[in-house]
Amino acid sequence: MTSNRQIQIVAMPEDKLGPEHFRLEEAEMPSPGPNEVLCRTLYLSLDPANRAWMQGATYRSALQAGQVMAGFTLAEVVESNHTGFSPGDLVEGDGGWQEYFVQPGKRLNKRPRREPITHLMSALGITGRTAHYGMAGIGQPEPGETVVVSAAAGATGSVAGQIAKLKGARVVGIAGGAEKCRRLVADFGFDAAIDYKNDNLFQALKEKCPDGIDLYFDNVGGQTLEAALFRMNLHGRIICCGVVSQYDTANPAPGPRGVPGLLVTKRLTMRGFLVGDNPDMVATADRELATWVDDGSIVVAEDVVDGLENAPAGLIGLLAGENFGKRMVKVA
Amino acid sequence: MTSNRQIQIVAMPEDKLGPEHFRLEEAEMPSPGPNEVLCRTLYLSLDPANRAWMQGATYRSALQAGQVMAGFTLAEVVESNHTGFSPGDLVEGDGGWQEYFVQPGKRLNKRPRREPITHLMSALGITGRTAHYGMAGIGQPEPGETVVVSAAAGATGSVAGQIAKLKGARVVGIAGGAEKCRRLVADFGFDAAIDYKNDNLFQALKEKCPDGIDLYFDNVGGQTLEAALFRMNLHGRIICCGVVSQYDTANPAPGPRGVPGLLVTKRLTMRGFLVGDNPDMVATADRELATWVDDGSIVVAEDVVDGLENAPAGLIGLLAGENFGKRMVKVA
Repeated sequence: MTSNRQIQIVAMPEDKLGPEHFRLEEAEMPSPGPNEVLCRTLYLSLDPANRAWMQGATYRSALQAGQVMAGFTLAEVVESNHTGFSPGDLVEGDGGWQEYFVQPGKRLNKRPRREPITHLMSALGITGRTAHYGMAGIGQPEPGETVVVSAAAGATGSVAGQIAKLKGARVVGIAGGAEKCRRLVADFGFDAAIDYKNDNLFQALKEKCPDGIDLYFDNVGGQTLEAALFRMNLHGRIICCGVVSQYDTANPAPGPRGVPGLLVTKRLTMRGFLVGDNPDMVATADRELATWVDDGSIVVAEDVVDGLENAPAGLIGLLAGENFGKRMVKVA
Repeated sequence: MTSNRQIQIVAMPEDKLGPEHFRLEEAEMPSPGPNEVLCRTLYLSLDPANRAWMQGATYRSALQAGQVMAGFTLAEVVESNHTGFSPGDLVEGDGGWQEYFVQPGKRLNKRPRREPITHLMSALGITGRTAHYGMAGIGQPEPGETVVVSAAAGATGSVAGQIAKLKGARVVGIAGGAEKCRRLVADFGFDAAIDYKNDNLFQALKEKCPDGIDLYFDNVGGQTLEAALFRMNLHGRIICCGVVSQYDTANPAPGPRGVPGLLVTKRLTMRGFLVGDNPDMVATADRELATWVDDGSIVVAEDVVDGLENAPAGLIGLLAGENFGKRMVKVA
C-alpha cells in the first residue's frame, strides 16, 4: 500500500480525445493532513462532463496537462483526521482517476451502504440526482404532456425519462442506434424512441410527437436541440442539462437556429442547471430515487468497465455513445 | 368619405425590405356588419415585428402579397354596430396600414383620451406594455443588479431600461451610433451606453459591466445576444423580447455560440414572451406606466412620420435603426 496508480493528462486534446492524451503512472501514496481524509477509490464515474472540463473553464477550472484526470468517485475511508469520518465509511467526492486520494473532510459526502453498491454511482448517484433535479424539480412534467429526452439511453437521460413516465407524461427518447431505441421502450417503458443516427430528426419528432413537445430535457445541444425547438409547443420548457454533441471537438457548432426567435414567438423558457446548486433538492432526490429503485419504478442500467487502466478507453467510448446506462470504472 | 387609402403588399421581400414591396391604393370604404365597428386610423404603429410577420408564421399567420399591410393602430370610432362602442370613442386594434378599417368590437380595446394622444402609442402603448411586462413582470431587476438592454434607443428598449432604473438597477444600453448613446445617458438616465456599430461588443460589455450582467433584456438576438451570453453572471436571466437583427434578411444567422453550453455552466434562464399573453399584466402596466409618465419618472421619446404614404419608408428606416424612440405614422 505504498504506491498509488493514477491516470494523468499528458496533453490537452486539440480535437477528439484519444488514448494518447493519458498515461498511467505510479505515484506515492498521499498522506492526510489536518482535517483531511485518505480514501480508496472503489468506483470512478465516467461522464461527458469529464471531456467538457478539458475544453476550458466551466463550473470548475479547466484541467491542465500534468494533472491527475478529474472525476467523481465512490470511495472508502482508509484513514481520517476529520471527526466526521472513520475508516470503512463509504463516501463520494471529487477524487480523480486514481486508486487513493486525500480530500478535506468538508469536501466529502458520506453515503449509507446498500446493495448493489453501484447504484450509488448510477440512479442514486450524481447522474440520477441530476435527472431528478432537472426533471422533477425544474421541468415538472404534468400528466398527459409530451416530454422528449435526448441521450435517453445514457445515465441521466434514462432516469430523467423514467421520472417523466412516473409523473404521467408521454415520453419520447432520442438515442443512437436501433438496439438502444428498442431498449428505451422495452427496458425503460418509454412510449417511443427516435434513432438520431438513422432517422431524420425533424420528421421523426413530427411523427413521434403528434401533439408537439411540451418539455424537452436536453443532454446534447446542437442539431438535436435545433430540431426540438421547431417542434416545441407554445409556452414549452427546455431543460438544459448538457451539451454532449459539442464536447469532443475543437470546433463547437454555432448555436441552434431558432434562438432566440422561436423563444419569442412560442414563449419558450430555456433553463440551465447544475445539481450541486441545490442541496435541498439533492436530499429529496436521494429519498425519492431510493424508493423508486427499491420498488422497481425505476429500472437501473449500468455499464461497468473493469480496472483503472481502462478508464481512458471507457471515456473515449462514452463520448462516442457506446454505453447503455451509467458507465463507471470498477477500481477496487 | 367614400374612398379608403391603403398600403398593400405587392410582393414578399426575398431579402431586404424595400419600397418596391408596397403600393398605395384607393379602396372602397368598408362597411361594418353585425357587431362590427368602422374606425378611422389616427396613428399607425411601426414595429420591427411588422417585418417578422413577412418572414413566415409567427404568433400570427404569415402576411401575403395582395393583402393590406398589417399594423397596430390607434383609431377613432366612426360608426358602431357593437353595443360597447360609440362614434368618437378612442380605440386600439389591429387595423392595418389604411385610413379606415372595420373590426369586430371584441377585437378592439377602448382607451381613455389623454394628452398628448401619441403617448397611447408609445410608452402607454404596445411597446411600453411590452417593456413593462418583460422587465418589471418577468425580469424583475433587483436594486444593484446590472441590467443590459439592447436596441435601447428603440420604443421598447428605452422604456425597459428606464423601468430597470426605477427598480434600482445599474442600466447599460446598447444602441447604434454615438448620438443615440449620448442620449441614452442624457435623456433616459442610463448609467452607460455601448455603440454596437463602433465598439467591440465583447470588450465594451467587459468595460461597462465590470460586475457582469445579471439581467439581459434582448431585443436583437444574433451577435449581441452571443456577446451578452459570455458576460452573464451565474444564475443570470435573459428576457427574449425580439430579434430585430434577424428580421430583414433572407438568411438568418445561426444561433449564438454558447447555447446551450453557457446556459448549463452558468445556470442561465432564457425566456421569451409576448405581451398579449397576460391581460392582467397589461392592466398593471397601463396603471404604472401612466403614473411614471405623468410624474416624469419615464421620459417618452417619439419619432412621428407624417402621412400614410410614408409608412413604407418609415418601416424600412426603422429596420435600419434610424429612429430614436417610438416610431409611428400620423395618418389623420
